[in-house]
Amino acid sequence: MPKIVDHEERRREIAKVTADLISEMGVDALKLTDIADALGYTTGVVTHYFDSKEQILLAAARRAHQNLLDRVRAVLKNDPADLLGVAIEALPLDQIRLTEWRAWFSFWGEAMSDSTLGIEIRSQFIDWTNTVQGVLEEGIKRGMLRDDLDPSHEADRWLAIIDGIGLQAAMNPEGWPAERQIRPVREYVDELLAKRSSQSKES
Amino acid sequence: MPKIVDHEERRREIAKVTADLISEMGVDALKLTDIADALGYTTGVVTHYFDSKEQILLAAARRAHQNLLDRVRAVLKNDPADLLGVAIEALPLDQIRLTEWRAWFSFWGEAMSDSTLGIEIRSQFIDWTNTVQGVLEEGIKRGMLRDDLDPSHEADRWLAIIDGIGLQAAMNPEGWPAERQIRPVREYVDELLAKRSSQSKES
Repeated sequence: MPKIVDHEERRREIAKVTADLISEMGVDALKLTDIADALGYTTGVVTHYFDSKEQILLAAARRAHQNLLDRVRAVLKNDPADLLGVAIEALPLDQIRLTEWRAWFSFWGEAMSDSTLGIEIRSQFIDWTNTVQGVLEEGIKRGMLRDDLDPSHEADRWLAIIDGIGLQAAMNPEGWPAERQIRPVREYVDELLAKRSSQSKES
Repeated sequence: MPKIVDHEERRREIAKVTADLISEMGVDALKLTDIADALGYTTGVVTHYFDSKEQILLAAARRAHQNLLDRVRAVLKNDPADLLGVAIEALPLDQIRLTEWRAWFSFWGEAMSDSTLGIEIRSQFIDWTNTVQGVLEEGIKRGMLRDDLDPSHEADRWLAIIDGIGLQAAMNPEGWPAERQIRPVREYVDELLAKRSSQSKES
C-alpha cells in the first residue's frame, strides 16, 4: 500500500523547521537546501509545497504566531482573565519561546522589504492586541480588574511591556533571568487589580 | 591640488546609507553594489573601507545607536532629568526615527547569526539602560521623581515601554499616530513624579 502523504502536515513541518533554522542562522544565510537537509528531503519536496523563500517565511511566521496563540488559548481556557499567565506564554522564558523570539527578529526585518510578510506581521500584532483586550474586558466584567480601565489603551501598555521585555531578554538571555522578565509584568498586573483600587480608596 | 579624502567621513557616509537602505530593502536583498550606487561610488571604494557585508552592518548599527545617543544627550544637556524628552527621541515619531527603527529590525535579526553584531546590539541595550538609569537617578537626586524608586528596575520598565511601543509603531505607522505612542510613556512618567506621590498621600 503506498504511503499516504499528509500535505498539510508537510507544510506545517517545513514552516516549523524554517522558523527554527532562522532562529539559529538568520534569514540572509538561510537556503532552501538547509530546510530540505534538516527534514531529510530533497529541495524538490520543499519547492513542491512552496514557490519561494518568501512563501516559506510567511508560513513560518504564521506557524510561530499560531503556536503562541494556541498556548495562550490553553491558559485562557482555565482562566479567561489570567493576564499574568498570558504574559508568561509570550516571554522568552524557555528554549521554545526564545527560539520563537529569535525568529521574530528576522521576520520583522524581512517584513520591511516583503510587503506580504509586512501585512501578516501587522495583522499578528492587531490579533495579539485584540486577544489581550479581550482578557482585560473579561477581567473587568468579572470584577477582578478595576472598572475604570480603558481596555484598548491598557492592551497597548500591557503589550508594550511584554514586547519590550521580550526583545531585550531574547537578545541577552543570560542578562535576563526569569525574575527580571516577570517582575515588571507582575507589577503592572497588580496595578490593574480591583482589590488594589479599593485598598487605595481605603487608605 | 588633489582632493583630500576624509576617510572617517567616508566610513560614516557608508554606514549611514547602509542603515537607510536596510530600512527600505532589508538585509537579505542588500548588495554591496546597492550601497556603492547610492553614494555614486564603485564597489571598490566600499570594499576599501569595509572587508565584508557583516563589517558594514556592524558600522551601520553603531552609527544608528550613536545618532540616537547624540539626540538624547542634546535633550539631557537642557534638562538632565527629562525622561519624556528622552522617550520622544527614541520613538518612531518622524521619518528619521522610523527609518532607524526599521533598520534595527534587520540588525536584530542578523545578530542571531552574526556574533560580533550580537555583542554590539547587547552592549547597545546595556548602554541605553544605563543612560536611562542615569536620568532616573538625576531625577531622584533633584527631588523631581519619587525617592522610593529603584532606578535599575525602573530603567527596565521604562525601556520596555519605549521598545514595545516603538516596535509596534514602526511596524504599523498608520495605526500608531503620535498620541497613541506618547500616551503610555507620559502616564508612566507621571507615576514616577514626586508630586504625584505626595498627592496620593494627601488623598
